[in-house]
Order: sequence, then C-alpha cells, then structure tokens
Amino acid sequence: MIERIAILGTGLLGTSVGVALRAAGFHGSITGWNRSPEGAQAALAMGALDSIATESLQAARESLAMPIYATLDFMEKLAPVLGSEHLVTDVGSTKRQISEAAGRLFNTPERAAFLPGHPMAGKERGGAALADAELFRGTVWLFTDDPAAQRSPHSAELVKGWREWVGAMGSKIIDLDPARHDELVAWVSHLPQFVATALSALLEEEVGDAPELKDVGGRALREMTRLGASPWSMWRDIAYTNTEAVQAVLLALEQRLAHLRENLRTPELRDEFEKANRFRKE
Amino acid sequence: MIERIAILGTGLLGTSVGVALRAAGFHGSITGWNRSPEGAQAALAMGALDSIATESLQAARESLAMPIYATLDFMEKLAPVLGSEHLVTDVGSTKRQISEAAGRLFNTPERAAFLPGHPMAGKERGGAALADAELFRGTVWLFTDDPAAQRSPHSAELVKGWREWVGAMGSKIIDLDPARHDELVAWVSHLPQFVATALSALLEEEVGDAPELKDVGGRALREMTRLGASPWSMWRDIAYTNTEAVQAVLLALEQRLAHLRENLRTPELRDEFEKANRFRKE
Repeated sequence: MIERIAILGTGLLGTSVGVALRAAGFHGSITGWNRSPEGAQAALAMGALDSIATESLQAARESLAMPIYATLDFMEKLAPVLGSEHLVTDVGSTKRQISEAAGRLFNTPERAAFLPGHPMAGKERGGAALADAELFRGTVWLFTDDPAAQRSPHSAELVKGWREWVGAMGSKIIDLDPARHDELVAWVSHLPQFVATALSALLEEEVGDAPELKDVGGRALREMTRLGASPWSMWRDIAYTNTEAVQAVLLALEQRLAHLRENLRTPELRDEFEKANRFRKE
Repeated sequence: MIERIAILGTGLLGTSVGVALRAAGFHGSITGWNRSPEGAQAALAMGALDSIATESLQAARESLAMPIYATLDFMEKLAPVLGSEHLVTDVGSTKRQISEAAGRLFNTPERAAFLPGHPMAGKERGGAALADAELFRGTVWLFTDDPAAQRSPHSAELVKGWREWVGAMGSKIIDLDPARHDELVAWVSHLPQFVATALSALLEEEVGDAPELKDVGGRALREMTRLGASPWSMWRDIAYTNTEAVQAVLLALEQRLAHLRENLRTPELRDEFEKANRFRKE
C-alpha cells in the first residue's frame, strides 16, 4: 500500500526508521533529506535511504523527523503542495500544537492525511551514525490522531498502512487525545529528563572539579545523570510547546522533595519509600 | 596475615564480601552471624561462610555488615571483649558517628583496631541470595580511618592486610576525612536515592493506576526510578545519621528545579543543559 517514503530529517530517529523499515521488510523506495548534507550522507551509508533529495519540498512525501517548530513550519509548506495520495506523519515529542495544525491544514478529503505520531524511543545523543534498526523494538509508539478526521478512503488506507509498519518495527501503539498525551509525557518523560538535567548541572557545580569522586557514586549516580547528556537542542522545543504541563510536574516534584526533606526523621519517610516501592512493583 | 574472619550480618554486602574474598584467594576461615538464621544459612549455601556462629559476640572478630545504629551498638559491645589481636571494620553508609566511636572505643595499643569502611556497592534489593563475588569489581571502597590512631604494630599490620584484601576484591580505595565523606556521599549517593524515591512516589500517585503507561516512559523512566525499589530499612539510618547534609543537598536541588521551571523559555535553559552535558563528559 505504501510504496514510497520520504524521511525529512535523517538524524537518530529518521535514520532508525529507515533501517527498521528495511529490517521489517519494506521494499518500496526511501528517499531522505536533511538540513546538513552530511547527515543525509550518513543515513545513506547506513542503508536507511536509497537516495538523497536535494530539495526538501520535492522530497516531502510521507514523513517528518525533526524538532517540533521545524515540523510546524514544514506542515505549513507541505499542506498546499500535497494531495490526498499522500500521508504525512511526524515524530514530535509534544502533540497539542502539531495535532491542531494537522486538523487545520490536512485531513480533508482533498488534502493529504496527517497522522501525528510520537515514538517513545531515542538515545541521549542523536545523529544518523547511532541509528539502530532495533531502536523501536519493545517500545511504545503514541498516536494522537483525530478520530473525526474527514479522509478519503485512500488516505484512510495510508494511515492504516503506516500503523501496520509501526507494529512491524516492533512498537506497541497507544492512541491518546493530544492534550492527555502532553500531560502524560510531562510526567513520564519530560519530568525524568529535567530532573536529570538539574541534578547533573548541580553536581557539576558542586563536585565537577573532583572527577575521581564521580566514581564514588557508582552505578546509581551514572543512571540518575545519564540523561544529563541530552542536548538542549532536542529539549528546547519541548520546553516551549509544553511549558505549563512541565511547570506543573516540576513544581509537584519540588514540593515532594521538600516534604521528604522535612521528614527525614519521621515515619513519613517510610511512607514515601513504600509508595516508591509500589511504583517499582511489576 | 589475616587468618580468620567473622562476618556480622550476612545480607547482600556481608555475603558478597565472603564470596569475593574466596574468589580473591582468601584461604582462612570465615564464620558468619545474622540476626535471622535463614540469612546465615543462605550465606553458607552461597559458599560465603565455612560455619555459622550462634552467638554474635562469640562470632564477632573482624567484620560488621549491618545498618549504622546496629553497628554502633555492636561497637560498644565488642570493644571491651576484643584485644589488639583483632581488627574490626564496617560497611556503614555514613561515617561521622562510626569514626567518632572508633576513636573513642578502639585504636589504642591495648584495644582492637577499628577501620571505618564504606564500599560504594550494593543493589536496590538486599539479601544473601543476591550476593555476588564481582559486586566490588571496579567500584570504590572508602575508608575514613584516623591517621593519628595509636595502634600496636600488629594492629597496624591487620589494617594494612584488610586494605590489601579490599584491593584484591577489585575495589579502588579512597581515603577521606569522616565529615568530608558524609558531605560527599550526600551529593553523589544520598541525593540520587532520595530523588528517585520522591520521583517514584509522586508517579505512583499520579500515573500508578495506569500500568501500561509506564511503558510510555521507556528506558529513561525505568532508570530514573530504579532506585525507587530501595527499602526504607536501608535508608532510615542514613537519613538519621546524615540529616543536615541530606537536607542541604535536597534544598539545593529544589532550588535548582525551581530555577529550571522559571526558565523553560529563557536562555538559562540552554545554560543548564550545557552544564549538565559537562558533568557527563568523560
């Protein structure tokens, strides 16, 4: 059903989608475009692409793998030049604004279909060179599609086809309302990231000049700060497009830490540990 | 030089020391005592012990592997019944109070030597059954010994001997002043633990009733909450014996999170990410 795929943005996720599709048996053509030509060359060398497109709009047919504001820009440019023979999807980490733009610009019988997507996969460092055909195996791929979208039968088939390829790459699909998506990922994805960033930045100031003392923290410290390596360039758009939800979860954790701090010698400490233990029970 | 070892407390650490010593070539006798007889039987079955002692003071010759207040109690009981032919060491996670008791009760030419120790190794769950001869490989073992201790030549030899066995089990030794130890571990060990506990407890309340949504967080969420499984029984004494230092680091992180929360849309966010990135640079 899906015969040709264009990947706009051949970083870690875009290139991983290319190699994962090949591993899952996709035999159609895959072309790619990247802001830096080196990234596209690397994706070609990894086997993620058959060809490199030199002009993004010419390449833009079925896929987007770039930060959120770049995605929103492309959506505006793509909508008028595509038609109902096309499906566009994305991998942006927040979905309220992208889903709103999808409803405004796409998903009518005459226009291309747009399926807002968010694979919960990644690495703390990006780039095509780290792409991995197994990156999506066992992970969750969220969609925030509008069930009331007015699509042509062909567009609806393309949406169904892409969902099947996502399953073939090893992901479990969960469908969510866009606002609920952004609230949920604030808790389970953005909060862990911002905590790791704050903890790492604080420790850099306090013990960063005593490098052998990082060894003292051992595995626990390494794990709790691994996400500290995540680049600002990946998180800037998330902070901008999910500001209120992220503020709410950060404030909740600040209050929780203060509660712990005030109860280091009271029975409340046991309650907190027991509640945390329950979260980790399978 | 060290011929007989008694391990008081054959949980994860005590039993791991037993099997690690055997793996490192210790051929002397190892006897063990545990508050629950099942724990001692498990350690015997793991090959960590040659024999089980039925009475703790009779067994108490060279080692302690138990929570801090239990260690302090034992130190009071052991000091009058041991002599300069003995070395006692411990594995407690805070060292100010234990080092103070060591100076008061041990380390004179007539009394046993006491070497305050702290292996930076463990698992989020305890018990002899999880003991591992490789638990200390590549980790740091901290000592907060008093360089001015007035010891007999024999006692000094025992201290040297135990430090060599620690090296043979694969640990790198770092010597610290006890107060500096407690301040440092507050940053690199206690803070990561209490953050993981607070984050896990908060998420248990907020998303704990939607178990499939834990999958959404993926590896990042699993890592940031793994220490949430740590039991209160291990951390109660740490919270009690290092309260002020832990309060200070928790407050510092609360302030850091508030700073991040107030700057999600300012250039400060980039500065925080870049500082965190530096902490993770090798």
